[in-house]
Amino acid sequence: MKSAKNRLTDMLNIRHPILSAPMALAAGGALAAAVSRAGGFGLIGGGYGDPAWLEEQFAAAEGEHIGVGFITWALKKSPSMLTDVLKHKPGAVMLSFGDPRPFVEEIRKAGALLICQCQNIDHVWDAIDVGADIIVAQGSEAGGHGASRGTLSFVPEAADLLAEHAPNTVLLAAGGIADGRGLAAAQMLGADGVLVGTRFWASKEALVHDNHHAAIMEANGDETIRTTVPDIARRMDWPRGLTGRVMHNAYIRRWHGQEKELKQNLSEEAIKYAKAFAAGDVNNAAVWFGEAAGMIDEIESAGDIVIRIATQAEQLRAR
Amino acid sequence: MKSAKNRLTDMLNIRHPILSAPMALAAGGALAAAVSRAGGFGLIGGGYGDPAWLEEQFAAAEGEHIGVGFITWALKKSPSMLTDVLKHKPGAVMLSFGDPRPFVEEIRKAGALLICQCQNIDHVWDAIDVGADIIVAQGSEAGGHGASRGTLSFVPEAADLLAEHAPNTVLLAAGGIADGRGLAAAQMLGADGVLVGTRFWASKEALVHDNHHAAIMEANGDETIRTTVPDIARRMDWPRGLTGRVMHNAYIRRWHGQEKELKQNLSEEAIKYAKAFAAGDVNNAAVWFGEAAGMIDEIESAGDIVIRIATQAEQLRAR
Repeated sequence: MKSAKNRLTDMLNIRHPILSAPMALAAGGALAAAVSRAGGFGLIGGGYGDPAWLEEQFAAAEGEHIGVGFITWALKKSPSMLTDVLKHKPGAVMLSFGDPRPFVEEIRKAGALLICQCQNIDHVWDAIDVGADIIVAQGSEAGGHGASRGTLSFVPEAADLLAEHAPNTVLLAAGGIADGRGLAAAQMLGADGVLVGTRFWASKEALVHDNHHAAIMEANGDETIRTTVPDIARRMDWPRGLTGRVMHNAYIRRWHGQEKELKQNLSEEAIKYAKAFAAGDVNNAAVWFGEAAGMIDEIESAGDIVIRIATQAEQLRAR
Repeated sequence: MKSAKNRLTDMLNIRHPILSAPMALAAGGALAAAVSRAGGFGLIGGGYGDPAWLEEQFAAAEGEHIGVGFITWALKKSPSMLTDVLKHKPGAVMLSFGDPRPFVEEIRKAGALLICQCQNIDHVWDAIDVGADIIVAQGSEAGGHGASRGTLSFVPEAADLLAEHAPNTVLLAAGGIADGRGLAAAQMLGADGVLVGTRFWASKEALVHDNHHAAIMEANGDETIRTTVPDIARRMDWPRGLTGRVMHNAYIRRWHGQEKELKQNLSEEAIKYAKAFAAGDVNNAAVWFGEAAGMIDEIESAGDIVIRIATQAEQLRAR
């Protein structure tokens, strides 16, 4: 297959302009390494602050050229996580959901590229201010945490801003991208490449329960919703305006709109949630996938997904 | 300019795969005719049921090859509107926001093409069932009424459904498309063309107050929101799940989340809203545009917009 080199692939020294999202809990070292081996760039999900888990995942990545992504507000509570992972010399560190400023200098000193994920135009300005090497414009279609802008309008607007104010900053599109059509579309919108979550969540290497994988194969793209319910149930103090896109299952139907009641019963409900999630119960906990679910009918290996996205995009562009 | 003929342009006998949305109140005959004259296909907005206004707009279209679009649940209350407009021999009738079944036979008998606008996969199935000639997959980014699916994930999922179950049905993308990047992206996603609202709302021919046009030139794409507030204020009985995307202005900040209070004060507030809207007051009524606002800095003529979208998309595809 002809490789589509561009400034993103040059910057990261990869073959395909495809990054896997650092999904908390689901994106471990095996997934990140598989994406990088196939010519993309994989990111371990730094999550909410479990240094031992992170060490295990870097070990599982077996020295592959990968990156790591953090939930910025969670990293602020445990900043030593950054110092620890930088010892593994990740190629890039991605920061999402919070002010990147406190971490920029340490990331640069370690020689890692800085990726800032943005959910709105204000975030893009922040990322320009700190001199991000790569900006991800993440649309609302994305699984997991995000906000309200749609990918299709957010990406070109971000591209216009970068063209004027930070022309050397590379732009990725995220949210709703599951195949080569999404990559080719993102490139038409002005992105250099894509950050893909849900499609890699539905891969053999992702740390996802089999029942959850069975659920995404059944679901169409209408069957997700943005909600704060799972964050309440997990006692996660997410900033206002950031919600999680999850499967619109029985659990969400029970509690979405009844958040006050959930909070009142939290001592009991938090335990029930944690047990149900650990058991892979798709009716009594959140199942974390996005609108791209409607294009996913099979759990494939991450490397095959990288190659298929790249090949299909190439064919579409050549047509 | 090289024209990009495809099955959409063949079906409608047009040069560019670009339709203007039948925006209630804003899309009159002058706009529809200007879009069609430039090689696209313009649609008059049938709106909420004002036969005299519709007659005026067909007169203003001066016999151009255009279409008309209806809010299906409103048409159900005044079905004679359809009979009346079909006398003008529109090239196509578009139905959105309700069950198309009661109107399909009359539209077909008049020789008009049937366009069904869909906000989710269930709607796409309905449109396939009635044998729509053209299906519009409308994403949440769109200005005015719509629902929650993002354009970037909804369009390819709809394309897959049509490829399997209705391969001769033409697919349009709508929501967040303002320029050639959006058209080229939509085509990569599997659409045959686009239905564009907000960009034509911001045209010289649109029936939009100058103050509202000034507001969109100032706004970025973050400054809109989906809400039911203006529908409450106008006593419009929109079905549950369909919201209007409008500018997130002082009026919406006042009432969004306070819908109960607005309903309690409606006898007074409805009058205030109507007066403010008529006066072009951008702080005390809704201003109807979508996320594409962030790509709009100028009020242009509709014909220039058609040509620019088509030209830019062609250049992107050729690159």
